[in-house]
Amino acid sequence: MNTRNFEKDELFEQFRAVREFSEEISSPLATEDYVIQSMPDVSPTKWHLAHTSWFFEAFVLEKYDKKYKSLHPQYNYLFNSYYALVGERHCRPKRGLISRPTVDEVYKYRDYVNKKIEGFFTRSSEKEFREHAPVIEIGVHHERQHQELMLTDIKHVFSENPLKPVYLEAPSNGTNGKTAKQSWVAYPEGLYEIGRGEESFCYDNETPRHKKFLNPFKLSSRLVTNGEFIEFIEDGGYSRPELWLSNGIYTAEDNGWQAPLYWEKAGSKWHHFTLSGFKELNLAEPVCHVSFYEADAYARWKGARLPTEAEWEIASEDLEIEGNFVENARYNPVPLNGSLKNMKIKQMYGDVWEWTSSPYVCYPGYKTLPGALGEYNGKFMSNQMVLRGGSCATSITHIRNTYRNFFPPDSRWQFMGIRLAQDEN
Amino acid sequence: MNTRNFEKDELFEQFRAVREFSEEISSPLATEDYVIQSMPDVSPTKWHLAHTSWFFEAFVLEKYDKKYKSLHPQYNYLFNSYYALVGERHCRPKRGLISRPTVDEVYKYRDYVNKKIEGFFTRSSEKEFREHAPVIEIGVHHERQHQELMLTDIKHVFSENPLKPVYLEAPSNGTNGKTAKQSWVAYPEGLYEIGRGEESFCYDNETPRHKKFLNPFKLSSRLVTNGEFIEFIEDGGYSRPELWLSNGIYTAEDNGWQAPLYWEKAGSKWHHFTLSGFKELNLAEPVCHVSFYEADAYARWKGARLPTEAEWEIASEDLEIEGNFVENARYNPVPLNGSLKNMKIKQMYGDVWEWTSSPYVCYPGYKTLPGALGEYNGKFMSNQMVLRGGSCATSITHIRNTYRNFFPPDSRWQFMGIRLAQDEN
Amino acid sequence: MNTRNFEKDELFEQFRAVREFSEEISSPLATEDYVIQSMPDVSPTKWHLAHTSWFFEAFVLEKYDKKYKSLHPQYNYLFNSYYALVGERHCRPKRGLISRPTVDEVYKYRDYVNKKIEGFFTRSSEKEFREHAPVIEIGVHHERQHQELMLTDIKHVFSENPLKPVYLEAPSNGTNGKTAKQSWVAYPEGLYEIGRGEESFCYDNETPRHKKFLNPFKLSSRLVTNGEFIEFIEDGGYSRPELWLSNGIYTAEDNGWQAPLYWEKAGSKWHHFTLSGFKELNLAEPVCHVSFYEADAYARWKGARLPTEAEWEIASEDLEIEGNFVENARYNPVPLNGSLKNMKIKQMYGDVWEWTSSPYVCYPGYKTLPGALGEYNGKFMSNQMVLRGGSCATSITHIRNTYRNFFPPDSRWQFMGIRLAQDEN
Amino acid sequence: MNTRNFEKDELFEQFRAVREFSEEISSPLATEDYVIQSMPDVSPTKWHLAHTSWFFEAFVLEKYDKKYKSLHPQYNYLFNSYYALVGERHCRPKRGLISRPTVDEVYKYRDYVNKKIEGFFTRSSEKEFREHAPVIEIGVHHERQHQELMLTDIKHVFSENPLKPVYLEAPSNGTNGKTAKQSWVAYPEGLYEIGRGEESFCYDNETPRHKKFLNPFKLSSRLVTNGEFIEFIEDGGYSRPELWLSNGIYTAEDNGWQAPLYWEKAGSKWHHFTLSGFKELNLAEPVCHVSFYEADAYARWKGARLPTEAEWEIASEDLEIEGNFVENARYNPVPLNGSLKNMKIKQMYGDVWEWTSSPYVCYPGYKTLPGALGEYNGKFMSNQMVLRGGSCATSITHIRNTYRNFFPPDSRWQFMGIRLAQDEN
Repeated sequence: MNTRNFEKDELFEQFRAVREFSEEISSPLATEDYVIQSMPDVSPTKWHLAHTSWFFEAFVLEKYDKKYKSLHPQYNYLFNSYYALVGERHCRPKRGLISRPTVDEVYKYRDYVNKKIEGFFTRSSEKEFREHAPVIEIGVHHERQHQELMLTDIKHVFSENPLKPVYLEAPSNGTNGKTAKQSWVAYPEGLYEIGRGEESFCYDNETPRHKKFLNPFKLSSRLVTNGEFIEFIEDGGYSRPELWLSNGIYTAEDNGWQAPLYWEKAGSKWHHFTLSGFKELNLAEPVCHVSFYEADAYARWKGARLPTEAEWEIASEDLEIEGNFVENARYNPVPLNGSLKNMKIKQMYGDVWEWTSSPYVCYPGYKTLPGALGEYNGKFMSNQMVLRGGSCATSITHIRNTYRNFFPPDSRWQFMGIRLAQDEN
Repeated sequence: MNTRNFEKDELFEQFRAVREFSEEISSPLATEDYVIQSMPDVSPTKWHLAHTSWFFEAFVLEKYDKKYKSLHPQYNYLFNSYYALVGERHCRPKRGLISRPTVDEVYKYRDYVNKKIEGFFTRSSEKEFREHAPVIEIGVHHERQHQELMLTDIKHVFSENPLKPVYLEAPSNGTNGKTAKQSWVAYPEGLYEIGRGEESFCYDNETPRHKKFLNPFKLSSRLVTNGEFIEFIEDGGYSRPELWLSNGIYTAEDNGWQAPLYWEKAGSKWHHFTLSGFKELNLAEPVCHVSFYEADAYARWKGARLPTEAEWEIASEDLEIEGNFVENARYNPVPLNGSLKNMKIKQMYGDVWEWTSSPYVCYPGYKTLPGALGEYNGKFMSNQMVLRGGSCATSITHIRNTYRNFFPPDSRWQFMGIRLAQDEN
Repeated sequence: MNTRNFEKDELFEQFRAVREFSEEISSPLATEDYVIQSMPDVSPTKWHLAHTSWFFEAFVLEKYDKKYKSLHPQYNYLFNSYYALVGERHCRPKRGLISRPTVDEVYKYRDYVNKKIEGFFTRSSEKEFREHAPVIEIGVHHERQHQELMLTDIKHVFSENPLKPVYLEAPSNGTNGKTAKQSWVAYPEGLYEIGRGEESFCYDNETPRHKKFLNPFKLSSRLVTNGEFIEFIEDGGYSRPELWLSNGIYTAEDNGWQAPLYWEKAGSKWHHFTLSGFKELNLAEPVCHVSFYEADAYARWKGARLPTEAEWEIASEDLEIEGNFVENARYNPVPLNGSLKNMKIKQMYGDVWEWTSSPYVCYPGYKTLPGALGEYNGKFMSNQMVLRGGSCATSITHIRNTYRNFFPPDSRWQFMGIRLAQDEN
Repeated sequence: MNTRNFEKDELFEQFRAVREFSEEISSPLATEDYVIQSMPDVSPTKWHLAHTSWFFEAFVLEKYDKKYKSLHPQYNYLFNSYYALVGERHCRPKRGLISRPTVDEVYKYRDYVNKKIEGFFTRSSEKEFREHAPVIEIGVHHERQHQELMLTDIKHVFSENPLKPVYLEAPSNGTNGKTAKQSWVAYPEGLYEIGRGEESFCYDNETPRHKKFLNPFKLSSRLVTNGEFIEFIEDGGYSRPELWLSNGIYTAEDNGWQAPLYWEKAGSKWHHFTLSGFKELNLAEPVCHVSFYEADAYARWKGARLPTEAEWEIASEDLEIEGNFVENARYNPVPLNGSLKNMKIKQMYGDVWEWTSSPYVCYPGYKTLPGALGEYNGKFMSNQMVLRGGSCATSITHIRNTYRNFFPPDSRWQFMGIRLAQDEN
């Protein structure tokens, strides 16, 4: 993991901002909403708030100050997610059984950690700062990741409630169904380089930069829309085994999938549950909350395929990072308006994470970080697929063109969508 | 179900008192504590508070006033427990996924229902009162049952938390290990009558009164204590198949039972989790939180057996109802002090529900109530065992010598204990 | 368990006959058929053949002759069913994974045991004979029980095969739908005695004889027929919760029950799989392969109830034991022909085991046999219901009016059916 | 899939040989052994024998002759494995519940199909032959694949039997522990080509040939041995989370893995179950029956890694195909004897399939075959890992340096082992 030589002020400002934003995200919630775990993948909001604080405690404060005392001796047990080298942990699927510490106590814990980190910024020597600053930077990025999970998790929690609570009202996404025309953007074959090479921050799994030969390929100029995905449904897509991976169709059958997660037909029209409540589906919005299996089947139905992560990275290399991020406060993908000028590729960043056809494995020559932080990424390189580009719940400050997100192929509760690719021939 | 001709005032006072007591029981809880369901058998406290209100709505208010409107159209779906004839219900194991209505909203719902029932008392005609009073009386008893569940459920919820929260500090149970000597009390054979015959309130499953021939039998003068149960454990009781029912030892093995629920060895001494926190075990207290299977195996190990429910009922017929009930605010069984004078039987009421060897089936000639209230008791007469006598979490106003409680033989989270019986020979 | 003073010849003849009959039952099978376990409740035929031999080995031969050597040292492990006191056992659900010993080897094992028991009859002293004869007698009855299981198990095995194999062709059951009219037979109230009192053989669970007070009651003159059960189905019986025990309707829903086991609609007509193959349903035959839950729901739908085991025993006390037993080689219940003369009760024995409303518990004063044979019956007295009267797969030599068969309330693969009862009022 | 222009005679001889060899493999079995399915992954031997016949029926005979009639109308249902486009199939985990067709009938079915294919060879026109020959060739390779499964499946079936049956006695593997020294063989970086380019037969998943850039790398000169793997066990390898993928250690914990499949400590020495019975472990033999997770953890413990499939393919490109294959009739990997001359890489073919670090995905530009044969390989490209090189149960006629075998990362019942790789630096 490379880090710039941050100036203290800049890093402190990042720290302060990310800590504040977690609390801003939580502010629309009632106390009761913080407690619930609606499935094993989901964590209660108060757990996220505490775990992101624990991260600074375990990886910075306890290293920096050998006499450091946590606010409570059991918090290290309760709020360690999966770092085996840091010690025993509370069982993940039981996070929703823990009413204490209360939400108030968790906020006190955050304040406690914030003050201690503030103290570090004030009092650390140059040498100490150089030693711990890179880990604080990881902690900032770590908390941004959890902010996205807080939103997707609370969406899942609310969706289980027959009262269909509203997290925050967002403005309408405009005219239903109106979107820019789809076209294909071509890229030549070549021996490319992918992976992070610059000095600025990245995770270990984005490195090392390495050579990759690509055949010529084409990417779709925009994301697949709800309206296009409905055509797949209406063509019997969910019950045609020839379109699916074997694991995919069994997963769909076992779980009774007939449409993306959160979709529901009310009368003759498709609706979906959103963070702004239960709404009629806008056909022009990018389709969202589909698994890799559904994305893959849709692509096959279209006579196309999903991009590899290398293709996605090459195609995005020179694009400016702009799009519909969490800072927009839409909490939902939005339609692509206007015409596509100059055959440029659009919607690469923001809106939805784009499933690639690449299993999540290490790059050639990959090395994990030493110590428990080495568990951050590497140990999950099994039975997961890479997603690229960030979503409407990602912070614009968090995404990079080399950023590798990863989820099992049957996951649907993140903001996940589809961009098509094709071989050039 | 028989009912006395209650005077309005008396019934209203009962209603008011039971409604108030539910809120008193809840008062030590933090908001977060109300939300959690730690296993499918357990319901969140706020669900209990809402469901007991819904009961008056569904069975009284909607019958009395055709124009009655609930506070929320979805509450009938969310807070119906198992009354199929009243309509669709929210899935029981998902009660812990519902953050809304919030605790505040649930208290508003209680107030709303209380005011409406108050209105009924104020405005109902003599005829209307005669029609609905028996159902209000059932509602009062129903809420008392749920008050016991609120306590046993919150105990289970807290026990899952590594922080081991304290519900309420209770006074100590006195000297560890000191208790009255055990002896046997004999009863002659005879053609007895059991079941409720009086005019006063009872549930349908206690009727009709009917003849039952009993061989001569003996009951233990007191409950089995923790100290006595530890002897069973130390004699290898949990791993000696000859002592157990076949289903019992498989259940014990599958769940890794080595001691009663909530017991834990800390150092060389047994401790247990209580509503007053994690405590060293008082050896003189009645053993508690054992399943029927453990009670049955213990009895066999002792060369004894469990009583039948008819034996228990005959033995308790002339006893005054007194003991360690919820009104004592101990939330735990207490040791039997003093000597046993005159060979009298003790601890029949309160402390712990006593497992009997009687499967829960209907009495000869049993009739269920008409309509949805007929689902109250009868449909559970399968694979459950009868327990008698009430516990430290039962209200003294709720128990009768004909009262039939029932749980599956592997249940342990209620305050359940053991009284031994023997054949006279 | 009481035993007559058998003469050696008589007991040996019984032994020889039962051993021969097991092989006769197996004779229509192909080698492959002997191997399969189609669900955990089912055992492979070759396991039954070996286990019934092991029984004589473990309980007679090894006691009689300290130097006795089994044919193979592992057979005690493989063919012990559930006698914990005899030692470790092979895991029940894995009986179908064991191709060796082969069928031929199992027959050799049977011969080996037969010869050794023959030797016992030839050489045992009077004292030795008195000691072991009662256990041989149990072994004979034990093997008769397994003969019934062999038939019901092979029926289940064959039913899983899309080829629907035929075990043996049986003659037709006559005109479809023609049966004797149903009426009610009344019995007065009284303090009766039930349980085995005579000297002849019975199992421990039939004792001791004891007093039981019964209200006046009525039993149906005959069994419920397929045609009558179809009316229940067509009246929506399987989806009306008010007719069912709570456990019952959940079981039905979870397993997708819409009709008795082995029923299948082919075109507009109900068919069922039988040991004679896949046949159109004869509406006059007693309904069969229903669980206790279905029997109970049917009775409630009819405004009736199931009999208690005491009522059944009193009603059958003076009846001759006759009916459609395994000796008839029909392997299916048959319609009741002719008119019912003199209001006599019919079909009490044979055809189908009749579900009672009595949970299987011990009689007052019950004592198990000493040693491992004490595990024969007593340890199963939990979550099972009593059935009475024997079936078309039971031997006439095996049944008594005090005989208590027992199965969990969700079992269906035995020949199980319904007789209705009512209170007299 | 490319095919040479086979001469009829050559293809017929291949067909004849492969059909015969399936029966030769089965010949040591008792009838009962053919029936059993010891886990869902395993199929009964008689199913393999029938399914490989069905393959020729469904893909050749029914296409060639529209009037073709199978021996039984249900065989298409029973013996279709996973070809959704060919129609409904019997449920895979229930293959062990089917006693009929009997083993004799399955052999008759094989003869029937053999004669029909023989008829095709005799009577087909040149044009017909050109059309169907490539599919017959696939059928031949398909049957060779199943021959390997027959051996691994019967090994699993026998291992479940406490009697530990012997399939065939094989000669001893020589001196325990004596093996050639391990060294590293280096390969330079480069833009290589992998995938099948020649005209001769291959599966669709080996194509198209395509460019792949590789960093410099080293492969171990030989496979990891039992003795080396024991060092990992004794160093606590199975309980050190830092060595494992997250999914891996959970799988190991959930399944209680403490050693490779079939290993068992008898006294102080490791033994393993083999097709020649239960034997003491030869420390010099290649370790076998490890999952990808164990292989990956072992490599990390050694400071090495697993090879990618591209590295394996480049390293094996010019090697002669020779090794310990099924034709050797050892049914177990054998130690590498002698010294390693000239730093040559050894044991690349035969002995054990070598786990690679490459998830099984399609090559760039991959196209499936048209029709149901397109389901052969492509639909399994999810959550599986590639293995290379063949095993002691593979036919030498079946393996190629481009051959891609694939199994889920938790599979262990194939002959699967470990070769280490390292980055050159």
